[in-house]
Amino acid sequence: MNQDQLQALLTKVQQGALAVPDALHQLRTLPYENLGFASLDHHRALRQGFPEVIFCEGKTVLQVVAIAKTLLRKNNALLATRVEPPVARALLRVSKRAVYHEAARVVAIAPPKLVRRGAVLIVTAGTADIPVAEEARVTADIMGSKTDTLYDVGVAGLHRLLGQQERLHDARALVVVAGMDGVLPSVVGGLVRQPVIAVPTSRGYGAHFGGLAALLTMLNSCAAGVGVMNIDNGFGAGCLAHRINMVGEA
Amino acid sequence: MNQDQLQALLTKVQQGALAVPDALHQLRTLPYENLGFASLDHHRALRQGFPEVIFCEGKTVLQVVAIAKTLLRKNNALLATRVEPPVARALLRVSKRAVYHEAARVVAIAPPKLVRRGAVLIVTAGTADIPVAEEARVTADIMGSKTDTLYDVGVAGLHRLLGQQERLHDARALVVVAGMDGVLPSVVGGLVRQPVIAVPTSRGYGAHFGGLAALLTMLNSCAAGVGVMNIDNGFGAGCLAHRINMVGEA
Amino acid sequence: MNQDQLQALLTKVQQGALAVPDALHQLRTLPYENLGFASLDHHRALRQGFPEVIFCEGKTVLQVVAIAKTLLRKNNALLATRVEPPVARALLRVSKRAVYHEAARVVAIAPPKLVRRGAVLIVTAGTADIPVAEEARVTADIMGSKTDTLYDVGVAGLHRLLGQQERLHDARALVVVAGMDGVLPSVVGGLVRQPVIAVPTSRGYGAHFGGLAALLTMLNSCAAGVGVMNIDNGFGAGCLAHRINMVGEA
Amino acid sequence: MNQDQLQALLTKVQQGALAVPDALHQLRTLPYENLGFASLDHHRALRQGFPEVIFCEGKTVLQVVAIAKTLLRKNNALLATRVEPPVARALLRVSKRAVYHEAARVVAIAPPKLVRRGAVLIVTAGTADIPVAEEARVTADIMGSKTDTLYDVGVAGLHRLLGQQERLHDARALVVVAGMDGVLPSVVGGLVRQPVIAVPTSRGYGAHFGGLAALLTMLNSCAAGVGVMNIDNGFGAGCLAHRINMVGEA
Amino acid sequence: MNQDQLQALLTKVQQGALAVPDALHQLRTLPYENLGFASLDHHRALRQGFPEVIFCEGKTVLQVVAIAKTLLRKNNALLATRVEPPVARALLRVSKRAVYHEAARVVAIAPPKLVRRGAVLIVTAGTADIPVAEEARVTADIMGSKTDTLYDVGVAGLHRLLGQQERLHDARALVVVAGMDGVLPSVVGGLVRQPVIAVPTSRGYGAHFGGLAALLTMLNSCAAGVGVMNIDNGFGAGCLAHRINMVGEA
Amino acid sequence: MNQDQLQALLTKVQQGALAVPDALHQLRTLPYENLGFASLDHHRALRQGFPEVIFCEGKTVLQVVAIAKTLLRKNNALLATRVEPPVARALLRVSKRAVYHEAARVVAIAPPKLVRRGAVLIVTAGTADIPVAEEARVTADIMGSKTDTLYDVGVAGLHRLLGQQERLHDARALVVVAGMDGVLPSVVGGLVRQPVIAVPTSRGYGAHFGGLAALLTMLNSCAAGVGVMNIDNGFGAGCLAHRINMVGEA
Amino acid sequence: MNQDQLQALLTKVQQGALAVPDALHQLRTLPYENLGFASLDHHRALRQGFPEVIFCEGKTVLQVVAIAKTLLRKNNALLATRVEPPVARALLRVSKRAVYHEAARVVAIAPPKLVRRGAVLIVTAGTADIPVAEEARVTADIMGSKTDTLYDVGVAGLHRLLGQQERLHDARALVVVAGMDGVLPSVVGGLVRQPVIAVPTSRGYGAHFGGLAALLTMLNSCAAGVGVMNIDNGFGAGCLAHRINMVGEA
Amino acid sequence: MNQDQLQALLTKVQQGALAVPDALHQLRTLPYENLGFASLDHHRALRQGFPEVIFCEGKTVLQVVAIAKTLLRKNNALLATRVEPPVARALLRVSKRAVYHEAARVVAIAPPKLVRRGAVLIVTAGTADIPVAEEARVTADIMGSKTDTLYDVGVAGLHRLLGQQERLHDARALVVVAGMDGVLPSVVGGLVRQPVIAVPTSRGYGAHFGGLAALLTMLNSCAAGVGVMNIDNGFGAGCLAHRINMVGEA
Repeated sequence: MNQDQLQALLTKVQQGALAVPDALHQLRTLPYENLGFASLDHHRALRQGFPEVIFCEGKTVLQVVAIAKTLLRKNNALLATRVEPPVARALLRVSKRAVYHEAARVVAIAPPKLVRRGAVLIVTAGTADIPVAEEARVTADIMGSKTDTLYDVGVAGLHRLLGQQERLHDARALVVVAGMDGVLPSVVGGLVRQPVIAVPTSRGYGAHFGGLAALLTMLNSCAAGVGVMNIDNGFGAGCLAHRINMVGEA
Repeated sequence: MNQDQLQALLTKVQQGALAVPDALHQLRTLPYENLGFASLDHHRALRQGFPEVIFCEGKTVLQVVAIAKTLLRKNNALLATRVEPPVARALLRVSKRAVYHEAARVVAIAPPKLVRRGAVLIVTAGTADIPVAEEARVTADIMGSKTDTLYDVGVAGLHRLLGQQERLHDARALVVVAGMDGVLPSVVGGLVRQPVIAVPTSRGYGAHFGGLAALLTMLNSCAAGVGVMNIDNGFGAGCLAHRINMVGEA
Repeated sequence: MNQDQLQALLTKVQQGALAVPDALHQLRTLPYENLGFASLDHHRALRQGFPEVIFCEGKTVLQVVAIAKTLLRKNNALLATRVEPPVARALLRVSKRAVYHEAARVVAIAPPKLVRRGAVLIVTAGTADIPVAEEARVTADIMGSKTDTLYDVGVAGLHRLLGQQERLHDARALVVVAGMDGVLPSVVGGLVRQPVIAVPTSRGYGAHFGGLAALLTMLNSCAAGVGVMNIDNGFGAGCLAHRINMVGEA
Repeated sequence: MNQDQLQALLTKVQQGALAVPDALHQLRTLPYENLGFASLDHHRALRQGFPEVIFCEGKTVLQVVAIAKTLLRKNNALLATRVEPPVARALLRVSKRAVYHEAARVVAIAPPKLVRRGAVLIVTAGTADIPVAEEARVTADIMGSKTDTLYDVGVAGLHRLLGQQERLHDARALVVVAGMDGVLPSVVGGLVRQPVIAVPTSRGYGAHFGGLAALLTMLNSCAAGVGVMNIDNGFGAGCLAHRINMVGEA
Repeated sequence: MNQDQLQALLTKVQQGALAVPDALHQLRTLPYENLGFASLDHHRALRQGFPEVIFCEGKTVLQVVAIAKTLLRKNNALLATRVEPPVARALLRVSKRAVYHEAARVVAIAPPKLVRRGAVLIVTAGTADIPVAEEARVTADIMGSKTDTLYDVGVAGLHRLLGQQERLHDARALVVVAGMDGVLPSVVGGLVRQPVIAVPTSRGYGAHFGGLAALLTMLNSCAAGVGVMNIDNGFGAGCLAHRINMVGEA
Repeated sequence: MNQDQLQALLTKVQQGALAVPDALHQLRTLPYENLGFASLDHHRALRQGFPEVIFCEGKTVLQVVAIAKTLLRKNNALLATRVEPPVARALLRVSKRAVYHEAARVVAIAPPKLVRRGAVLIVTAGTADIPVAEEARVTADIMGSKTDTLYDVGVAGLHRLLGQQERLHDARALVVVAGMDGVLPSVVGGLVRQPVIAVPTSRGYGAHFGGLAALLTMLNSCAAGVGVMNIDNGFGAGCLAHRINMVGEA
Repeated sequence: MNQDQLQALLTKVQQGALAVPDALHQLRTLPYENLGFASLDHHRALRQGFPEVIFCEGKTVLQVVAIAKTLLRKNNALLATRVEPPVARALLRVSKRAVYHEAARVVAIAPPKLVRRGAVLIVTAGTADIPVAEEARVTADIMGSKTDTLYDVGVAGLHRLLGQQERLHDARALVVVAGMDGVLPSVVGGLVRQPVIAVPTSRGYGAHFGGLAALLTMLNSCAAGVGVMNIDNGFGAGCLAHRINMVGEA
Repeated sequence: MNQDQLQALLTKVQQGALAVPDALHQLRTLPYENLGFASLDHHRALRQGFPEVIFCEGKTVLQVVAIAKTLLRKNNALLATRVEPPVARALLRVSKRAVYHEAARVVAIAPPKLVRRGAVLIVTAGTADIPVAEEARVTADIMGSKTDTLYDVGVAGLHRLLGQQERLHDARALVVVAGMDGVLPSVVGGLVRQPVIAVPTSRGYGAHFGGLAALLTMLNSCAAGVGVMNIDNGFGAGCLAHRINMVGEA
């Protein structure tokens, strides 16, 4: 409930247009819906610009479907992440507008007549980092950002990146995804003046410790202006890139 | 053997009603029963109010069944945790009174005529935390506590929790279960004056490290009066909540 | 602002006794006071039964003194923890009622006419665990619990503990403090039916890793009903023990 | 050397206005200056909008002073971080325009006639987090952002934050600084739609492990759109916040 | 090659009974046999009292069988550990004397006419620790120690252990195996004066970290005289217990 | 683009033989080829003496085959590592010259008429370390080094190694592969004066933590002149050994 | 209280020679003495062959002196470890028989007419490991073992150890102390058939992590029959070596 | 004792020129000298090309001086590392030829008439990495390598490195030293075909964990042919670089 709504409500009470118990009820709750196993936050789209997103790991197919249906009753867009094929098949049956982005493990329903704006560039160090990058790209796209990609340009062949510096400079926000040594965000961060979001991936072995090595590299980046996401968190990176991309938009 | 029993025993020896070797034998042992692979503590119910609980991980079906049968010969209640379906089926054949709580992975036999008292509230941050929460709930319930639940009220939509503060205040003990960032116990702990038991879950990925992240969040909670359990330890939380709930009961 | 206060406020608005802007202001804020470097929560005592506690580490002497003075203007009790001697001396000058508990590193002002109730027992494994134990004891005491202690009864000489089992059974809540291997809470937890709060200390060396070893021991305790605090967190243990001790009190 | 400069250079070569060896020299190097112990990047201001920043830890006073003097010959602004008092005194002698921000441990020289724009809000959970927050604030300020602060509003007294939600909504970028359990960024991230930069601090003890606990909390935040910095990295947060603040600016 | 053999060899060279090249050859090598993928140490039995033991993890069935056959050509005993059923079946075909100890995952051939001596006692905290305990027991047994067992006597029911203290005192060496909190070796170590070998097991969950918690507990044991083995290393414990048991034997 | 090529290009521009836009294009890029999911570095062979190597983990069969075909269009050699059998079968169909080294999990195509030079010795502590050792051996071989092996000579039977010291001294570079305690590189490093490359393997259990124990042993080696590779990184060790072996070659 | 004493007590009760309350008192307690801050275990010498040992870290000088005086009233020997010089000076004033072993940081009073038996050999890898080795040596010596030393024979110069193998074979128990890579116990363990006690030290830097690297090396030792102590735990090693040395003694 | 010396010795025994006991003595020992607290390896220079090096941490001034004097009696060169000023002053008094390299914390005596050969290049990412780099440089220099340096060329200003690629290509071995994110070795490793030795430094803060972050980055380097040293181990890097530099030298 925002400032204006609160003022309106209080004025109604003052004018006798709203009974105290009813006002009390409204003041106590923002809209959410209880499914027993889930409390769905219908205020999310109003507050943050996009409905609640379904993180599918750890939920049953039945739970995911029930949540999706409930959300779609109040919203015209949907994003579900970490979607394994059986869950994807079930979600595709929920709505004809649903699309399964397999590489990204995402099922998405774009808002109708979505106009994409600005410029988010997604960069990866290697081929195996692409699933995480695609999760970021689809997320930013569905929220309303124009996106572009630059994949497999790690520092083992630095000229692949240096040859495309202009594409780096054309973006409003950059997402840089890397596993192994995780050095690409430091290199990109040294070249540009825009915000850089670094995403470590679990790609690697041995002393990589499931992405910990790349994560630490990025947290300790010598390049300033680099924010770091959790390992494999493409969704979070896409969401943050979109929010940055929207800064300064009316 | 408690103080009174010890005094009685010594008095019998003094009176010649008990031979020294027999007294010697009784003084040396509290009741337990040796199955070779298990030494069952029949004194547990007397000492701690509930019989020995069977933790099924790492035990064969045959071992679990043998332990259950032996315990049931001396006790009228049973609790088995971490019960996979094949073990559950075997236990249901041991007693008609046994109930399988599938979400909680628990098989339980309630003591006859159990009167549940007090109020334990189980709260979760997300849907995927429910199995651990249910293990806590069933445990507290079978031991004799009244329980209630409040699921999926994490801080991404804070109004879901704030809208139900009275239910928080009505409990005598709260169990707060959370994975991911594990912040919910800090928020709940800042709102109430009752004891809060925080349970981290292994739900998460990447730098979550199997629940370590949530565990550390909870151990470092800014809110005072929060005790922490091992990751996914719903049983321990339910047991502790029950004991707190019983403080001050005759 | 609780339910009753909210209803009263709305009724006043309805009756014209309170202008909308004033109501708006009150609805937006619970009482706190801004010192620039600190936002003091004057609602804390009402909500949780004791005023905000000052954790002195990382604060300057001037900051601690300013916070203490501000808190004392609205409260009649004070607790400051992790108090180094120079801070203690400054605090003792703030109020004649202030007492410095040196072993506990605590400065405390008890509420006038405090009646201590119930029974909290503080147990330590070794002599070097006493400072943490004393922080717990003073905290529980100042909040209104009767406290007792049982120090240096670790398992290297188990009979020291077994010989005093009745004192264990007489408490409503137990705090067990241990460094090194941290095994004492498991042993105590196996003997009693009351809630046990385990506090690892940083006492130890080598693979103790500043208390991590003892912490892990306690989190993995075989004994049910044991809640764990952060390493050296005597304050938190005392606060939780007090809250448990108060369960069932009118 | 950017695209336009490169084209100009090649055209000069084509026109005979630049000899091949000279062109070769220019193509091989961007401007930097070698002090033996440091290679100063004079291209930094052109490329990233602010001159190279001096991280003083691990450098001698003499090295810091020599670097500062060299940078000031080519730039009209300066930022030195992690400045201990002796280094600060030496830097203040280098230029009369230099200012020592003691809480932030920063020495700064603002560019002449700097016009600050946009809105960056710095939030802390506690008083002891202020030094890191101030490092972020001074950094964003000196780079050209308008800044504001909201200190000591952690979740132990949640109403302190909820009462000032509008100030959260008024910012273009938020920096949220927290030690201990590090939960504040999750709570703020659940309330706003702007980019949130989370900065863990080393404030804490025991299982806080020098800030690791707070870092992990933030990386695992349930709230989307939160980017994380290294522990105590106020400078990086300020720089990233400034860059985000500048997105969409002409 | 020991001192006496070396002296004999040199005397032969002096006497012309051994040519220099032959002496050279003998001086350079102790007996071992090269299978390409394995260099079998035939000197082991002479040097350490038992032939080389086959650790089967990471070896193919063919490799294990080839190694076993080669060892049996020069030795009359065999011990293979971490034996999965297919490997066990293959080894049982190698020799009719081979016995598969399934709980211990060991295949063993005892030396003919082995006389077992002394007394090694194997103790476990729980039922699930028995596989590791059995690996220790079979190892000590096959090397020539008399063994006895005391299983499932953890501290949750301390009287089970205290009631059998005399069996503890009767052993020459004790192996104490425990998972979860790993506290049993500390308790046993406080009761006896013999050497205690502590073996942590991977039994546990959450913050047990695959046995790390129990390992750290044991390394930090308050009880003196406790040596620790790697997690789940029953073989090593059995071998060390046997060696201790043999101290003072002719 | 090297120094000579750059000078030639500029001269052509000066002479009007190359238009500015074409020069601009050439100056911006070194050769690589974009497959969408991969940017293949065709400059690698020129720059580092061997074409880009395919690390197959995390790539689909289709991706690996497409990369292999593209690389083979510009190069006459190929190395693919971490090749599971289905990938191997697909690669063998790409070229008749391809060979699958199963133990090493490598598919390789040697350059025609490759002359192998120098001497690289690969040593292992145990049989289970051989797969990693073979990856190193095949890598060094295909790049042009003569290789030899000495397997299963760990310190449990030290004479196996000491008896073959001359083979150690005959190599120009040594690769020493060990799991478990990882001590062999320290022992070899104390015996020779050549560069030693230590490779920890994930072979082990319990407190081995997937190779971390062996890795730390090697990083802390008392023997000087030992460089360490990531856990199980046979490829990197073979590559580094080859490069060392080539030092001083015309 | 042992079996015989218990029987005697019960017989006295039967005969009326002992009143029930007195028997009750005796049955409840083994001898210990309460100093408030310490509960001294006077039963220790009877039970384990040597009085309680004072670990001085974390205790004040006054506490140490009070404990020492109390112990000396009931025992004729004393061992205090981790003794800093001021504590040492205070202890030397407690008894003229006290000796300060400075390198070992130990103050000891040997029992009168102590006859040392058997053979314990203490080996170190380097010079800096000697303080820990000396703590072990003095401990074993004061408890009644003959001791010998072999210092600075690490594997960087393996011949220093191999040249003295007979001294290894002459011991009944070996303590091997090493920092850095911690490989020496593996090498010694491969040469002997006696029990080997490995002690990691905190000597090292970087990825040594305060002794963790050496500790892990030892826990993963390829050599069988090696038990491991906590980092820098010379006392524990000396105590265990003594107990092993006494096995088989009348 | 090498092959030729052994043959000569045996021939002397055969010819009666050497008595059996004398031969026995020689066969048993390589030269070393026992100082009680140190066993000096006089065979080191013969075996590995340079005398034993003194690592001064953890040794007293007296011990270092005694070791230095003993080594200088048999060798004409000396290297002492981790030399604090008081130790340096003492060593400078031992020999007039000794030189203190303060930045490197090294005292060195070069062999007379040392001819330096080949080319070792030492590169650092930052100014604060120079002490470690200098330790490497002085070590390689004193052992006989020509050395050169390239300092403070980290990726925050990549052109500083790219502008000097030829100097990279001119070396036979490269040592790349970096703290913080530790990315420089990956970048250098992608540009050259020579062996690269990566040295992480402890320079950094927060999630740098004393150099662990940089270490992990380097171990996971995407660039092939990179060997890694322990954190801050400049000595080891210099020694390995020298050995690589000598490969192929007569």
